[in-house]
Amino acid sequence: MAAELTAHELIAQHRPTLDQALEAIRTRAYWSPHPEHPKAYGENGSLDAAAGKAAFDALLGTRLDLGQPGTDDWTGGEVSPYGIELGVTYPHADLDVLLPVMKAGQRSWRDAGAEIRAMVCLEILKRISDRTHEFAHAVMHTSGQAFMMAFQAGGPHAQDRGLEAVAYAYVEQVRTPDTAEWTKPQGKREPLALTKRFTPVPRGIALVIGCNTFPTWNGYPGLFASLATGNAVLVKPHPRAVLPLALTVQVARQVLAEAGFDPNLIALAVERPGEGIAKTLATRPEIRIIDYTGSTAFGDWLEANARQAQVFTEKAGVNTVVVESTDDYKGMLANLAFSLSLYSGQMCTTPQNLLVPRDGIRTDQGPRSFDEVVADLAKAVDGLLGDDTRANALLGAIVNPDVKARLEAAAGLGEVALASREVVNPEFPGAVVRTPVIVKLDGAKPDDEAAYMSECFGPVSFAVAVDSAADAVELLRRTIREKGAMTVGAYTTDEEVERAVEEACLEEAAQLSLNLTGGVYVNQTAAFSDFHGSGGNPAANAALTDGAFVANRFRMVEVRREA
Amino acid sequence: MAAELTAHELIAQHRPTLDQALEAIRTRAYWSPHPEHPKAYGENGSLDAAAGKAAFDALLGTRLDLGQPGTDDWTGGEVSPYGIELGVTYPHADLDVLLPVMKAGQRSWRDAGAEIRAMVCLEILKRISDRTHEFAHAVMHTSGQAFMMAFQAGGPHAQDRGLEAVAYAYVEQVRTPDTAEWTKPQGKREPLALTKRFTPVPRGIALVIGCNTFPTWNGYPGLFASLATGNAVLVKPHPRAVLPLALTVQVARQVLAEAGFDPNLIALAVERPGEGIAKTLATRPEIRIIDYTGSTAFGDWLEANARQAQVFTEKAGVNTVVVESTDDYKGMLANLAFSLSLYSGQMCTTPQNLLVPRDGIRTDQGPRSFDEVVADLAKAVDGLLGDDTRANALLGAIVNPDVKARLEAAAGLGEVALASREVVNPEFPGAVVRTPVIVKLDGAKPDDEAAYMSECFGPVSFAVAVDSAADAVELLRRTIREKGAMTVGAYTTDEEVERAVEEACLEEAAQLSLNLTGGVYVNQTAAFSDFHGSGGNPAANAALTDGAFVANRFRMVEVRREA
Repeated sequence: MAAELTAHELIAQHRPTLDQALEAIRTRAYWSPHPEHPKAYGENGSLDAAAGKAAFDALLGTRLDLGQPGTDDWTGGEVSPYGIELGVTYPHADLDVLLPVMKAGQRSWRDAGAEIRAMVCLEILKRISDRTHEFAHAVMHTSGQAFMMAFQAGGPHAQDRGLEAVAYAYVEQVRTPDTAEWTKPQGKREPLALTKRFTPVPRGIALVIGCNTFPTWNGYPGLFASLATGNAVLVKPHPRAVLPLALTVQVARQVLAEAGFDPNLIALAVERPGEGIAKTLATRPEIRIIDYTGSTAFGDWLEANARQAQVFTEKAGVNTVVVESTDDYKGMLANLAFSLSLYSGQMCTTPQNLLVPRDGIRTDQGPRSFDEVVADLAKAVDGLLGDDTRANALLGAIVNPDVKARLEAAAGLGEVALASREVVNPEFPGAVVRTPVIVKLDGAKPDDEAAYMSECFGPVSFAVAVDSAADAVELLRRTIREKGAMTVGAYTTDEEVERAVEEACLEEAAQLSLNLTGGVYVNQTAAFSDFHGSGGNPAANAALTDGAFVANRFRMVEVRREA
Repeated sequence: MAAELTAHELIAQHRPTLDQALEAIRTRAYWSPHPEHPKAYGENGSLDAAAGKAAFDALLGTRLDLGQPGTDDWTGGEVSPYGIELGVTYPHADLDVLLPVMKAGQRSWRDAGAEIRAMVCLEILKRISDRTHEFAHAVMHTSGQAFMMAFQAGGPHAQDRGLEAVAYAYVEQVRTPDTAEWTKPQGKREPLALTKRFTPVPRGIALVIGCNTFPTWNGYPGLFASLATGNAVLVKPHPRAVLPLALTVQVARQVLAEAGFDPNLIALAVERPGEGIAKTLATRPEIRIIDYTGSTAFGDWLEANARQAQVFTEKAGVNTVVVESTDDYKGMLANLAFSLSLYSGQMCTTPQNLLVPRDGIRTDQGPRSFDEVVADLAKAVDGLLGDDTRANALLGAIVNPDVKARLEAAAGLGEVALASREVVNPEFPGAVVRTPVIVKLDGAKPDDEAAYMSECFGPVSFAVAVDSAADAVELLRRTIREKGAMTVGAYTTDEEVERAVEEACLEEAAQLSLNLTGGVYVNQTAAFSDFHGSGGNPAANAALTDGAFVANRFRMVEVRREA
């Protein structure tokens, strides 16, 4: 059967986009081919808002049959953080059937070469992009993100990260040429001459273990990096966030088939309630790459036990913002208030510990005491979230009962500077919506250390009084080293303090945002420009995306013969 | 104190070489800046043969004081495989003093940036190159390699591999720009604008664990890759092969100091007899990168236990040559005879198992039975090594008693097709020199499998009778998968067999040499063009050199602020 999508068509359509992505990761200037605005969709085959919503609604209560071999059952029981039951069921896989079938198509996928693989990946991303409105609802109703965030972070931003991974994977494979002529002079004798052929070969089957909060954003980099380097990819979503990745796999299977490849190069593995298949999957000999986002405990387990695989983990961390001085006090407060509120602090990049000297800080509005800074920040959060409509649009819903329980317990950890309040979501009365809590702690009190030196994932921040700027930097350094950090922020007008914070971040390998007072937030990173995590502290063993994220997903095999 | 070597001078001298290396790894055409011929040395500050020999002789019986802090003792007891005692003693380190001192210079080394680090590494390599004759004796009298091989493999070829690692490390660091301006349009509002700075930061201290047989060739890639990416490097040589790496460290410390950096960025850790410090070193929290060449048992131990570090290992493997048919029977025999004889088979790349169909092979000289092929190969080896002078020049000496014991035991494993014989070395009567043994085994006999499916490191090859070409490919595949392989060779004129062998190598990730009958041998790889190992089978978890070998030796830290 002839492929419906020819190589020629794929290259004509997607090569320019790949080239732009390659240029963007080289300059790290702003670039994205995926529109952020919901109204940008609806033409050229993409679904508009109404069509996307209708497509999502039509999925509810259905069986998503991906046509996967080895499907021995159907399972699924996602309940939206907004209260509705999705009622979608998915294939449950017999691994002893599915895994061998997944390997069958690898030879032709390998032989297609790096460019065609990249083009097929870009076609998958294009089809996902066209359905961004539909995916937005799927992400919203699994992660609890508010619609606009689910739309942007789950749609174009996730697609950007997927494309970025494809670009890195492509360039890594083609830095060695397909063939080489090697001629070594031998003085007066005939030169030695060899013809060499180089082929990037996959490691095997890659496993993507998805997370609850950002199924697409955190899932796409590993998924596309592995697929683009020739591996088959098995996607095991978080049981509470299956739908966005199931749709992704469905799209990918269809594109692979249309392009003449085996659709089983990508497949879904959904677990029955309580089945816990991640450990079983992760230690199967066929699995040679694992991408994981989630708890430190399981990430550490994977690194220790899935020894047959390359393991890429994003785990817990404790993100710090040093607040030492500012020449834009209002801007700082507004920026921090937004950072703490966005998606109820349920981002791996949300600041947790705000380190403020107990003697106060210098600002453009005059000096502010520790208590004043904390009270002003509380007021800024209150102001930001005072209107329920805006609060709902910013906070989204609490993703699961564990986060709610942690939030409720946090008030007992110290003096509450800002209490969390319930917000009613009129559209989804079942949604658990809460504003962030800010708790005061003392960096000099050993009892408080247990609180601020652990990740308290969710809408909980600690305003930690420290003795001095130097003390703040030292605590920052220790926190990164011992607990890891996806992000660090700092506010200072003092060059010496700035240098000290920078040096701590350079030495402990953490990504630093300095003096953000406008519309960029410490918890947001842009694909093609910002690295997400560093891969050099305990919060993650890899960064999104750099050469190390892709270089070991394939190996280069050389065949040489006399010329 | 002003640096004696300025950045300007270093760049003027070495940047063109770096650029040529970068071009070579891109085209993979032949290139080397390091002459292979001993007579090429003696001008422009390099030592000629006599001066190199004198320099080596002057080292014997001395204390090599590197000026390292934390030296609590002196140790060393190398005995040359050629029978002479080197009598050189080296610093023994108090790690609790040495390791903190090594970290002290890292900040300025980091801040120097990727280009200056590369230039300093190239200056180190240049000074080593100038002393190639001296290093050749040091490699010869630790590894047992014959002089010409010690000269070439321990000199220019090792230097090439070091330079290749520097080139990869450099390009990996500069693919992200130092700074970027990021401006994101916001419709009618002001664009968001950030200034970003990107700094490659080292992981910490890198540990190089050297091997007995190729101290420089196997040691330089990791050493220079780690140094060029900003790490301090601690070198722990094999206790029988300290001198070549000790001299390397001495040169590097001097160059670092002259360039204005802390010489303690590189240091030597030599162990007392039986002290076994590798395990202690490898699990120190300061050690964040390990490069190791040696036994599978210790390589596996490192991978399992040195969890705080990136671990790069080259371990044991079983290299196979499939002999199915040839259109140049004499060339094939001559090529194989050389491969088996070179350095008494003590290369990780030497073929061990020669798989030959029991019904014989087709050749340009007519059909040859299994027994004829083996007998003809034995004759070819005998012919090659019939003259003792040539035998000594090719074989070198048996590196240690374990190899000798294995060689002697091998004759008991099956029918001996070619017996090993003693060769007298008139210049070094203490040298243990042996020609290779070839033992016939039957691939269909389970009892024989224990022999041919284990690495028998040394001058031992097995001629294994197989049922068919398909059987040979299947055994090849299983051998790579279960035991690993640094190299695979094949002789065939049959396109289908060629494709099957290629497919096995692509699927099991092994480097393949096809139908070599001239002056290139399966056990030799050329830097800048050939990959050494694949990193995708059990013989090694890394390849020399690719992106994966360097990309995770540093991390990229971003500092961003509003523009």
